[in-house]
This record gives sequence, C-alpha cells and structure tokens, in this order.
Amino acid sequence: MIGKGNWFTEVMEDEGMAFSLRVREKLHEERTAFQHIEVYETEAWGRLLVIDGCVMLTSRDNFVYHEMMSHPALFTHPDPRRVAIIGGGDCGMLREVLKHPGVESVVQVDIDAGVTRAAERYFPELTESNDDPRASLLFDDGVAWIENQPTGSLDLVIVDSTDPVGVAEGLFGPAFLGQVHRVLGEQGLMVQQSESPILHRDTILARLHGHMRQSGYARVVTLQYPVVSYPSGWWSATVASKGPHPADFRDQDARHKPFATHYYNADIHRAALAAPEFCKGLFTDQ
Amino acid sequence: MIGKGNWFTEVMEDEGMAFSLRVREKLHEERTAFQHIEVYETEAWGRLLVIDGCVMLTSRDNFVYHEMMSHPALFTHPDPRRVAIIGGGDCGMLREVLKHPGVESVVQVDIDAGVTRAAERYFPELTESNDDPRASLLFDDGVAWIENQPTGSLDLVIVDSTDPVGVAEGLFGPAFLGQVHRVLGEQGLMVQQSESPILHRDTILARLHGHMRQSGYARVVTLQYPVVSYPSGWWSATVASKGPHPADFRDQDARHKPFATHYYNADIHRAALAAPEFCKGLFTDQ
Repeated sequence: MIGKGNWFTEVMEDEGMAFSLRVREKLHEERTAFQHIEVYETEAWGRLLVIDGCVMLTSRDNFVYHEMMSHPALFTHPDPRRVAIIGGGDCGMLREVLKHPGVESVVQVDIDAGVTRAAERYFPELTESNDDPRASLLFDDGVAWIENQPTGSLDLVIVDSTDPVGVAEGLFGPAFLGQVHRVLGEQGLMVQQSESPILHRDTILARLHGHMRQSGYARVVTLQYPVVSYPSGWWSATVASKGPHPADFRDQDARHKPFATHYYNADIHRAALAAPEFCKGLFTDQ
Repeated sequence: MIGKGNWFTEVMEDEGMAFSLRVREKLHEERTAFQHIEVYETEAWGRLLVIDGCVMLTSRDNFVYHEMMSHPALFTHPDPRRVAIIGGGDCGMLREVLKHPGVESVVQVDIDAGVTRAAERYFPELTESNDDPRASLLFDDGVAWIENQPTGSLDLVIVDSTDPVGVAEGLFGPAFLGQVHRVLGEQGLMVQQSESPILHRDTILARLHGHMRQSGYARVVTLQYPVVSYPSGWWSATVASKGPHPADFRDQDARHKPFATHYYNADIHRAALAAPEFCKGLFTDQ
C-alpha cells in the first residue's frame, strides 16, 4: 500500500488514521521494565524516537513541542526559579527550561532511565544541557516524587508525558493534579501536554480542564501549536495557573529573550492562546 | 505494514512521509480530461475527496482550510463586493464567501466540472449555496479567465488550487499574479493556498512571496493554520494586498459576524498572522 522501501507507521485505530515515516534503519530497540523503546534513522526527518509504538519525537520537528510546553509558562510566572519536569526523559524539555538564566534548579523525574540513555546516544542535541549544574536527573515515579515534595516548593511543573494510557495515566488524574497544586508556590503554574484539539476536545481535554479546575487552579487555558509527527499534526498544551494568566505574560522579556528559539516568540505566545471557534468555552476561562 | 482493513494512503515521496485514512469503500472514481478524481467513505473522517492521488479534503476537517482561506481576507477588505475563486471546484470556498451579506457576486472558475459534479453528489453540504443568485460557476481555465477581466473589476481573488504542479502550476507564477493585481481594485486582495511552513518555506513559500512582491502588492503576509489531512498537518495561506494589511482588519465586524464558523474568529484571525521564529522575515513584511 505504501510502496517500496521501509516505513515506520503509527496507526491510530480509534481515529481511523495512520502516519508513516520512511526509515533507513532501526538504530536501537529495547524493552525496559516500563516501555518498548525504538530509535530509527529516517529518510527526511532525522532520527525518530518511538515508545510503545507511538512517535515521541523526530529530530526535525520536536522543537515546536519542546518550546511551546516550556517558554509560555516560563514567561508567565513572574520569576520562575524552581522547576520540575515530570516525564521528559528525552531531555529536550530540560534543555529549553535551562535556557532561562533566572532558573536556579530543574529536576527531571522520568520513570524510565532507558529513554534518557537512548536520547544521550541518538539525540545528543537534546541532552546537551544535562551537565548544567542546575539540572538533576531522577529516574523515579513522578506521582510518588511529587507527593514527597514540600508544599509551595516549586514555581513550575511541566508534565511531559506519553499519552494518558498505561504508565502515564496517573499523570492526568485529579489526585496527581491536586498534589501538583499543593507543591506549587503562590504564583505557580503547571503545564500538561493535552493531545489534539480536533481529536480529543470532548475527552482528554475536557476531563483535564475539569480536573484542573477541581484542583483549585485559578486559571486554566489551552495553547495550540502544530506537531507534524503527533496524531492529526495539531497539538495542545494546557496551562493551569495559581497566579497570572498566560495572556498576562512577561511580554517584554519574551521579546528580548537572551536565547534562540525556532518556533516560540512573544507573538506566537499570544497567538497560541487564541481559541478556535469550536473550542470556545473550553480552552479559555474568559 | 498498516494492518488489516482498507486504507487510502497519500505518500509524500520528497518528504519521506505518508498519511493514511481507513476507508470503508470507494464511492466514485473518474478520469476527467484534466484529473483523476476519487471519493471514499472513510471510517472516522466522513468522506474523502482525492485528486491525482492527493487528499483534497475530508468532511471532518475541511472547515479550517475553507474558513482560513476566505474570512481573513474578506474581513480585511473594507467593503468586499466582487469576488472570484480560481479553482475551488468542491464549492466549499464559495459557501464561505457567500456567508458575507455584503458580497454581491462570486464567480468560481474551475477548469474541471468533474470536481463540482462529484462534490454535488458526495459533499452536498459544501455545495448548499451553489444556487445563491450571487454565485456563478464557470468551468474554464482560471489563468485565461483572469486575463479577460477588466482592470480593477474585483475586490478579492481567492486561488484555491491543487499543489503547484501540473494543472495548477500556472496559478503560482508571476504572469498570473500580475494579471490578478491588474484585475483587483485599489483596495483589492488576493489569497493563495501556499502549502506547509515546515515543508515549503524555502521553496514554494519563498517563491510565492517573491512573485507577489514583484507583481506590485504593497503587503504580502502568510497566515498559518492546521489542516489534518494535508502534508505535515500544518498549512498556510498567503495574502497579498493592494490596500489594508490583514492585521488591520475589520475586527469589530469579525467579532459580530452574522454567521457561524467552526474555526475562524477575530482572535484566530490575529493569531494566524503571528510568524514562527523560523519564518520571520518571510511571513511578514514588518
């Protein structure tokens, strides 16, 4: 059906769709205690990281996801110093967060060291900041780790997980969201990858908004952005804030950010907050 | 590779990627004098229109494309009355344009009547405005038709074409763009579908911007939006204006539009204009 050559294909059975990348070779395959990890060399998208059959990232298009899951929240908090990343084993999120000079500590808590080992070897550009003295890499259960953190001890928690099934299911539930709320300081924010607006508005997105509001966050808002290699190519991050609304971000700091990005900028920050007509009433609390 | 069942797959050879939709049956297949037309019933995306092997639209996701190719320009022109659509044989664009009560005439010029016949039969929701007395459907060569129009006789020209190869190639060239410029009134605009920011920035998009500027347009700007069923899921429209910049649109009219949309609104209009960092200097003229 797809013709000659080798392809990696992710089938989304529930959505009756599939996405394929032409691959040259499989570079790595491993079954850890938690997940099935594969790395491919693709024809046109650089390297491809796959976990449990789902595309996690490609070298060519991961920049949008990593930038949009980190910088909008970091430029919304008035002074983010203490950051935790739950999941994020590929370390691309860690790299983005560490670009902010005011950040004093970032703890990355991924349950599966295998992902980080694979990233170090096959995606060295994502792990280039791992030796930053502000970074700590833990391989542990993020849910349990959050429960053990002191109240008010973090400014930002980024949940960079796989889909809300299997290992990551607990990261979308009210118990975990409530614990994150407790751990955050007064101006604290959390960011969660929240799947596709066109595929998951009435399911994952609606539930997540409900759980975040029940957890006591003053403001819950969803940002949209494109991710070529994720189902539908149309993705979202949902930000829950105890303090400022992401629309009231440090605009001037974002305009004069002391680091390079490839997708994010102050205009894109504001643009990502616009709710499509069919998402109004869910994506915004205005 | 894709498993059981029937799939329609579009392979993008140059990009080493493929997109597949699970189909129940092929409803229609026809080779016209110009193109190979297919219509499928899909499992989860409604009906699927394919021309020369490329996805043109699905029932479920075409709303974003049609709305973003029409309403931003219609709310930018101060008083759009005379509109032409070049291509657009599925009639979805015609339907959107006719939602604007101030529009007095819309001429749709598609070279291939087969597309419109297929749309009438399999996508009746797209053709529901075809009997509007303001609409004229011509089946003719859009390049020749534009050459025969009087100078200054149109307010908006929307080029809703297939990819810039084969039949549609001439619609992206400087000769055609120059003729459209001549045919537009003083405040006139043209809109062109301009492919994917991540796939075609340095090729189709860069050339189109260059040709539009050479044709004398005061302002050329690219809007981005998601289209699930197009290559990369990340699409664009490029607007060339002899008058107002699309950022200076009739914001209040858009906010109080007397018709329903599913994606477009005034916030989305402004948001679509934000240029990703890697597109700055091309997408905007600021």
